[in-house]
Amino acid sequence: MDVKAEDFFLAAKLDMPRDTKVSKVGSNVTLINVMRIPGLNTLGISLARIDYAPLGENPPHTHPRATEILTVLEGTLYVGFVTSNPENKFLSKVLNKGDVFVFPEGLIHFQLNPNPHKPAVAIAALSSQNPGAITIANTVFGSKPAISDEVLANAFQVEKKTVDWLQAQFWEDNQN
Amino acid sequence: MDVKAEDFFLAAKLDMPRDTKVSKVGSNVTLINVMRIPGLNTLGISLARIDYAPLGENPPHTHPRATEILTVLEGTLYVGFVTSNPENKFLSKVLNKGDVFVFPEGLIHFQLNPNPHKPAVAIAALSSQNPGAITIANTVFGSKPAISDEVLANAFQVEKKTVDWLQAQFWEDNQN
Amino acid sequence: MDVKAEDFFLAAKLDMPRDTKVSKVGSNVTLINVMRIPGLNTLGISLARIDYAPLGENPPHTHPRATEILTVLEGTLYVGFVTSNPENKFLSKVLNKGDVFVFPEGLIHFQLNPNPHKPAVAIAALSSQNPGAITIANTVFGSKPAISDEVLANAFQVEKKTVDWLQAQFWEDNQN
Amino acid sequence: MDVKAEDFFLAAKLDMPRDTKVSKVGSNVTLINVMRIPGLNTLGISLARIDYAPLGENPPHTHPRATEILTVLEGTLYVGFVTSNPENKFLSKVLNKGDVFVFPEGLIHFQLNPNPHKPAVAIAALSSQNPGAITIANTVFGSKPAISDEVLANAFQVEKKTVDWLQAQFWEDNQN
Amino acid sequence: MDVKAEDFFLAAKLDMPRDTKVSKVGSNVTLINVMRIPGLNTLGISLARIDYAPLGENPPHTHPRATEILTVLEGTLYVGFVTSNPENKFLSKVLNKGDVFVFPEGLIHFQLNPNPHKPAVAIAALSSQNPGAITIANTVFGSKPAISDEVLANAFQVEKKTVDWLQAQFWEDNQN
Amino acid sequence: MDVKAEDFFLAAKLDMPRDTKVSKVGSNVTLINVMRIPGLNTLGISLARIDYAPLGENPPHTHPRATEILTVLEGTLYVGFVTSNPENKFLSKVLNKGDVFVFPEGLIHFQLNPNPHKPAVAIAALSSQNPGAITIANTVFGSKPAISDEVLANAFQVEKKTVDWLQAQFWEDNQN
Repeated sequence: MDVKAEDFFLAAKLDMPRDTKVSKVGSNVTLINVMRIPGLNTLGISLARIDYAPLGENPPHTHPRATEILTVLEGTLYVGFVTSNPENKFLSKVLNKGDVFVFPEGLIHFQLNPNPHKPAVAIAALSSQNPGAITIANTVFGSKPAISDEVLANAFQVEKKTVDWLQAQFWEDNQN
Repeated sequence: MDVKAEDFFLAAKLDMPRDTKVSKVGSNVTLINVMRIPGLNTLGISLARIDYAPLGENPPHTHPRATEILTVLEGTLYVGFVTSNPENKFLSKVLNKGDVFVFPEGLIHFQLNPNPHKPAVAIAALSSQNPGAITIANTVFGSKPAISDEVLANAFQVEKKTVDWLQAQFWEDNQN
Repeated sequence: MDVKAEDFFLAAKLDMPRDTKVSKVGSNVTLINVMRIPGLNTLGISLARIDYAPLGENPPHTHPRATEILTVLEGTLYVGFVTSNPENKFLSKVLNKGDVFVFPEGLIHFQLNPNPHKPAVAIAALSSQNPGAITIANTVFGSKPAISDEVLANAFQVEKKTVDWLQAQFWEDNQN
Repeated sequence: MDVKAEDFFLAAKLDMPRDTKVSKVGSNVTLINVMRIPGLNTLGISLARIDYAPLGENPPHTHPRATEILTVLEGTLYVGFVTSNPENKFLSKVLNKGDVFVFPEGLIHFQLNPNPHKPAVAIAALSSQNPGAITIANTVFGSKPAISDEVLANAFQVEKKTVDWLQAQFWEDNQN
Repeated sequence: MDVKAEDFFLAAKLDMPRDTKVSKVGSNVTLINVMRIPGLNTLGISLARIDYAPLGENPPHTHPRATEILTVLEGTLYVGFVTSNPENKFLSKVLNKGDVFVFPEGLIHFQLNPNPHKPAVAIAALSSQNPGAITIANTVFGSKPAISDEVLANAFQVEKKTVDWLQAQFWEDNQN
Repeated sequence: MDVKAEDFFLAAKLDMPRDTKVSKVGSNVTLINVMRIPGLNTLGISLARIDYAPLGENPPHTHPRATEILTVLEGTLYVGFVTSNPENKFLSKVLNKGDVFVFPEGLIHFQLNPNPHKPAVAIAALSSQNPGAITIANTVFGSKPAISDEVLANAFQVEKKTVDWLQAQFWEDNQN
């Protein structure tokens, strides 16, 4: 194997703002993982830049194979995660520029930019070369095909028509 | 350390039906993990019995530290899981008695008993002595304290009052 | 990779009794591992049904890459394992329906159905997608080719002709 | 923690012959593991010297948590291991001074000095700071308390009195 | 254990420039590891800010337990690492703002700010909650006590007095 | 896969002295890793013989993926390693025949034969089937291509011409 510097490099432009209008929730995650830098294979780490619009959010999600550590580059973030059953304890914090926060592997967490006027930016690192991401709303209401409304109505204790309505709008969202 | 057989044993009565009315969703999970059998420490496995009422459900959840393999002992189960972003592909299957299904580590999955008249029972094994469980609805709408309705309204693209209503009923649920 | 539900599924008929006459010792292990469910690859778990004839036995064996956790579905089992040198402590227990027992990775263990009239059934889970199994008698006396009788006579402190006689009958056994 | 060189050192005298008469099988294993060098903790390796009397043997055994790699310092060794069920293939080799052989984790293996006049010596390394060792004969016939003769008679397809006789002599052996 | 948000948080001020005059080589590493955020325990990740003076350098070093992934926040960096024996291939790259580079676990690497007028800043993540750092020059010439000059003279193929002179100045350096 | 004994065997002649004149530093490492015994794949161990000329040295180096445990077969060795920043504590010991010493994963260590008249020999085991080796002097001064003298002059606090001179002689060395 003729190893070369390019296998460990990406001109990722992590210094450049991303368009946060690509999602309805006002955020944009740029993940640099093993699919983008082949030299990361088996090495157990990846890096991301996250842009948040004013009031934008990286909505509740989990990484099935990684813990995340994050620092704020610009703006302010309201962040949190919830512990496992049966406690389901919600831990949250307001982060200012330069603060650091940890989201343990597999737990549901989010970041929200509470400022209505200014964007925010974070750098996050994840303890896997392929951490995966499962956005709760997309997964539960926007999967392809849709999860049976019977399953979700019972799980969320709502009527089926409420589930259908939620799925309809996420279905649309996923077509954009 | 004077090791003895009792450290590796539990009279868990996994043959006995559990009360599925303890939860609104009509299921009951009996997990035998390292907190119940100390000899499991560091050994990377645990076992569970799951009871389902007619139309009962083990609602969408993840195990942050374990893959699950399940077999049906009684009745029928409609099961599924959703893959990570961006595909969010929903894979599902109807399982009959004796069938086996695998839910990979960290992915959101569920089991539902589609039979309106008969209960169902499964045995599941998990690849950790302390797999953890994160029930999506409980975590997102029933955490203590509640996640800010602003976070959830944006994430699920609903109005805040819808979030408040969902949280109110899960809050009740978690007091029972 | 176009992942599909069938990759994580097997119609294994784990509810159906197996023929315990296939072995001289009166037991039959049905193991669902990565060779039977490809989706188990790298996920670190597998599942088995074990049938025991009256007085039948899953004879002393080890799993070189897995801990086992077992529960009794039908009947009664006398189970045990032996700790490493130099203690070689034998820990045993009689298990009734619904009881759970753990056999730590790599240790020699067995299960015997002490009831002369009724069969027994267990479900076991193992902490590897390919746990392996080494049955002591088959390995020591029934290998192909046979281990030199000099090696075994010294190890078991018996005469070579005793070794030859044991090997002869296991050799036969392995041809059936 | 005030770390010092002594935590990583042992005056183990691995150059000195050991007494091979301490066991009936004519061998003596000197294992340097984490109990003897505390600095090995979590580091995943240990080292051993093995002495063999003329015709002496390190009888069939497994290491539940380690692979072994061995080189012959003096004399000749006939070595082998058996693969898992269902193949139970016996792989063997005669090793001369300076040869290297590998015994994979958890498999049953042995070394025998075929020379009736000269001792043999080997150095072995194991891939765990606490590999464990399970000598088959000691475990099966010499455990404390003894495994029920019913279990062993069925497993080895012999009469109970044969089992009793084997256990009696190993019981003696373990008192010496 | 009463877990709280503070266990996963640090007001690390990673947005603030550090003093690069604390070292002769013109750099300053601010590492946020498990000693500073207890919640990182066992989670396999840590984060660092690195400041470089004009022409400053994070000199050749290794992390014994971690791979590093780095992105440039400000300025330009000339970075490189050397592969193992026998190739000892040197891979290097000039990184601009927003570029990403990976330094595989245990390999010797460095970053240098080639700009004589402007500082540079990077954020790096490491695949361990306690990655460790071994600066080659400090370790080889500045250890306490000093490594024997005989060892180093032979290793670096220089005269002992050259070694003594190098050690003298690093010894001074380590007193500052 | 038709596994055979030869996959786990090598006629490595580890009993035979190696030529210590192949390197300027007077040592010769014969490593038996997965490239030489294919059966070692994934098994996490390898073995080495090290020969030392009178006053010869295995110069400061690290193994990026392994801890090393060593015993002296012939002669005497002065050995040591240095702990990570910021302590950089140097731990050393004189080892006689039969002594055992441990070099923890990723730390810089060496062995030197202090005897001007007699050679020394050691057997070492490493906790990886492919431990890697990074000789500090070869890597820093003998890489291909050479590391920029600006990087090294600053790191070692010497003039560029000193770096150039060191590199020139290691460059020669690596051509032999």
